Amino acid sequence: MDATPTATTVDVNADLGESLGTWRLGDDEAMVGLVTSANVACGFHAGDPLTLRRTVRAAAAAGVTVGAQVAYRDLVGFGRRFIDVAPDELTADVLYQLGALEAICRAEGTAVRYVKPHGALYNAVVHHESQAAAVVAAVVAYDSSLPVLGLPGSTFLAAAADAGLRCVTEGFADRGYAADGRLVPRSEPGAVVTDPAVVAERAARMILDGRVVSVDGVEIHVSVGSLCVHGDTPGAVAIARAVRDALSARGVGVAPFA
Amino acid sequence: MDATPTATTVDVNADLGESLGTWRLGDDEAMVGLVTSANVACGFHAGDPLTLRRTVRAAAAAGVTVGAQVAYRDLVGFGRRFIDVAPDELTADVLYQLGALEAICRAEGTAVRYVKPHGALYNAVVHHESQAAAVVAAVVAYDSSLPVLGLPGSTFLAAAADAGLRCVTEGFADRGYAADGRLVPRSEPGAVVTDPAVVAERAARMILDGRVVSVDGVEIHVSVGSLCVHGDTPGAVAIARAVRDALSARGVGVAPFA
Amino acid sequence: MDATPTATTVDVNADLGESLGTWRLGDDEAMVGLVTSANVACGFHAGDPLTLRRTVRAAAAAGVTVGAQVAYRDLVGFGRRFIDVAPDELTADVLYQLGALEAICRAEGTAVRYVKPHGALYNAVVHHESQAAAVVAAVVAYDSSLPVLGLPGSTFLAAAADAGLRCVTEGFADRGYAADGRLVPRSEPGAVVTDPAVVAERAARMILDGRVVSVDGVEIHVSVGSLCVHGDTPGAVAIARAVRDALSARGVGVAPFA
Amino acid sequence: MDATPTATTVDVNADLGESLGTWRLGDDEAMVGLVTSANVACGFHAGDPLTLRRTVRAAAAAGVTVGAQVAYRDLVGFGRRFIDVAPDELTADVLYQLGALEAICRAEGTAVRYVKPHGALYNAVVHHESQAAAVVAAVVAYDSSLPVLGLPGSTFLAAAADAGLRCVTEGFADRGYAADGRLVPRSEPGAVVTDPAVVAERAARMILDGRVVSVDGVEIHVSVGSLCVHGDTPGAVAIARAVRDALSARGVGVAPFA
Repeated sequence: MDATPTATTVDVNADLGESLGTWRLGDDEAMVGLVTSANVACGFHAGDPLTLRRTVRAAAAAGVTVGAQVAYRDLVGFGRRFIDVAPDELTADVLYQLGALEAICRAEGTAVRYVKPHGALYNAVVHHESQAAAVVAAVVAYDSSLPVLGLPGSTFLAAAADAGLRCVTEGFADRGYAADGRLVPRSEPGAVVTDPAVVAERAARMILDGRVVSVDGVEIHVSVGSLCVHGDTPGAVAIARAVRDALSARGVGVAPFA
Repeated sequence: MDATPTATTVDVNADLGESLGTWRLGDDEAMVGLVTSANVACGFHAGDPLTLRRTVRAAAAAGVTVGAQVAYRDLVGFGRRFIDVAPDELTADVLYQLGALEAICRAEGTAVRYVKPHGALYNAVVHHESQAAAVVAAVVAYDSSLPVLGLPGSTFLAAAADAGLRCVTEGFADRGYAADGRLVPRSEPGAVVTDPAVVAERAARMILDGRVVSVDGVEIHVSVGSLCVHGDTPGAVAIARAVRDALSARGVGVAPFA
Repeated sequence: MDATPTATTVDVNADLGESLGTWRLGDDEAMVGLVTSANVACGFHAGDPLTLRRTVRAAAAAGVTVGAQVAYRDLVGFGRRFIDVAPDELTADVLYQLGALEAICRAEGTAVRYVKPHGALYNAVVHHESQAAAVVAAVVAYDSSLPVLGLPGSTFLAAAADAGLRCVTEGFADRGYAADGRLVPRSEPGAVVTDPAVVAERAARMILDGRVVSVDGVEIHVSVGSLCVHGDTPGAVAIARAVRDALSARGVGVAPFA
Repeated sequence: MDATPTATTVDVNADLGESLGTWRLGDDEAMVGLVTSANVACGFHAGDPLTLRRTVRAAAAAGVTVGAQVAYRDLVGFGRRFIDVAPDELTADVLYQLGALEAICRAEGTAVRYVKPHGALYNAVVHHESQAAAVVAAVVAYDSSLPVLGLPGSTFLAAAADAGLRCVTEGFADRGYAADGRLVPRSEPGAVVTDPAVVAERAARMILDGRVVSVDGVEIHVSVGSLCVHGDTPGAVAIARAVRDALSARGVGVAPFA
């Protein structure tokens, strides 16, 4: 399992391609200038095909690696609501999304280079064994050379490692952590950190020291193979820029993990 | 452009994978024993991912070639209602569907080997230039070695040929023809032929003589690179079997075109 | 709370209107001749508007009472997968569905006369307090004179009773019961009883004795204000007819509760 | 048919409730302070139920009249793509939407007080006879006392008048007109006017003189029973405010038509 990289470089990822037709979310054009890996939506929680194509084109033009952000089928809920999908359905849903984004990538001269579950699916596979196994099964069936991004200590990464997939641990500079290393749910206080300076400082400490302070004040260890910044909030671009500057000021470069 | 093949063999195609979750349509298990090419839905007009996987698995097990049946995004209308989709959106929609089905195929050890528009899109691209061009653009961007299936004389096949795609003309043994070679719309009398014996006889004449009688009694020429039988009607299996028997009795074998 | 009625009459309900466009499910025309209450889908798990209109028209013509079968927004999963919908979203979703069906009913000269949750929502509100409260809140906001159908002992009926709604307990002649009175999940053995004679006998005992034998052989008490038979299985019509005949043979008439 | 009102008052309407889950569009809170009639989406082109409830609540609190903005079923296309829906399906679709919004209104102490087609449906029924008749049939079946909003001279308003519905003609201060009185399609130059001062001036002339200058420089007559300003553009609030100020400066008050 990939753990904290050497202090010299780190991957920075963000969720992109999350508009839907007329509805815009995030500033993909700006974000591709600030990240090294783009978790591009696949149409189930966000991202109509034309949106995806534009985002992938921008990512490819900027030399940003594209990953597939697979999700529950839930546009209205933006993939943030747990759905009790049966494993064989979930495996097929993930395959479908991987291929859909791959075709868009192929048309733009790039490819899907990693897989990251989105939203409620991301949170579910931290502990939900059959859904974690179902996502892993899809990646294995599709292309077992694709790395997966996930939360350190999650059932998902354990299952992926067992299946021989390359696992990349992820750290969230702009999300609150519980003392057990899980992310604070969005419905609870402290879930999201919005001050760019604070996020940037957390990011630097996560990369350089492998540590972050939880919402209840405990310093915990975090393994960060890739650093996630959010792309869908009003201040997303400012935060990403602050993180990049903070890393640069401390001599940390950025490079895609995949 | 592929025209009527030698009398010795012909391809027989049908639409499969058109169930949706709980809702069943057609008998894919039986049909894969009777066709050589399966036009598998891609989720926009029918076919949830698990349905698609089961259909592709059955096709692969039976040695049936899989093609992508791309459609307008319209589950409630089953892709049978014209939608005025802009060309860049339609190209992205087709890419998305091609890739989605490809991933399902890859997981089942097969691949998408041709492309056929479905329903109202099939009918639109007979004459709608920008939508025809949009579908062609998607196939070219995805894999320009993929053949396309379409109506002889259609704008779609002309655009595909111009783009260097292999074009396969299609004949419909169970659909009524107008004197100009177009299909009679489903809303009009004579649109569908349901008697297995009649369909089988028409199929044999289309293959052996290159001719069919239109709804208004005119004998017209048809070019049949592949023969379409429907898979979604109650009598579909009986019709497909009658067609196969009629062809066999006249010494016509079947083989996939792709 | 309405408990077992006098032996002379009972309400018989079934789920109708569960087709979607081209996809047919159940035989609504036949079922409206056999039930007294039709739980009509509202478009979230099944039922496009035209399907709903045809079903409501048939119900109205047969003198069958129409209820709204409200569900999670999940066509592909037919509303059978739990979704962790926030309470205010669920209340709005239920309001939306109630009104949509009401308008269809108004156009056909009838009205929504009761509310019954469908599938996974039905099962969730047996115990899920905030979702149960959310459904109740929708009914209260819409029309507090509407009765609700639910499982005896459920959180849902308790919350509905607290809110002053009329509660009607429901018995399932064709579903297996656990010893605690809950329904056996569809994924487990014994979930569904398919032999018409057995279902009819269970129905008669449930009505006349207020008892049913659970999957593990325990005789349990059931309170049956309305008897549910399923409308979406191949043998649904035969089962409903057998139940009606068995009740009739024992002198039990049928009449809508609402 | 309601034509240009006396110069003393006019109705000002805008499209509201067009967000979808996470995706925000327009500033409904600000717009309800500037319009007298809110065309609220009904979930087919935009507007999840919770969004609709919040918008209706804000409209009711501001004393703004609510109308139902009925549309084709097309979230990805925002209802802006023509769909060749059969009349009986379209009538059922409109009924469904009317009732859905009505239930939301009832929960917020208000009601649907008029009907306005949205986007491509609005444009289609300017000339498409069977779709125009289908929308009218839905309103008649639902509540024949509901007025309809439409383009002067349209097939829709003619059919509505024939059916005995109250018809209110609509003027668009921020849209370009062709010389024949139709709106310039959004895909063509001059379709949208964005300068608040220009829009305000056009609005005043439309109300006071019943005239507007077309994109090709012809002064044409317009009948304005209600003035439409858009709510979904970045400058929407500024434009609406400029229109209100310009009307007020010329002694024109505002009042709902319904």
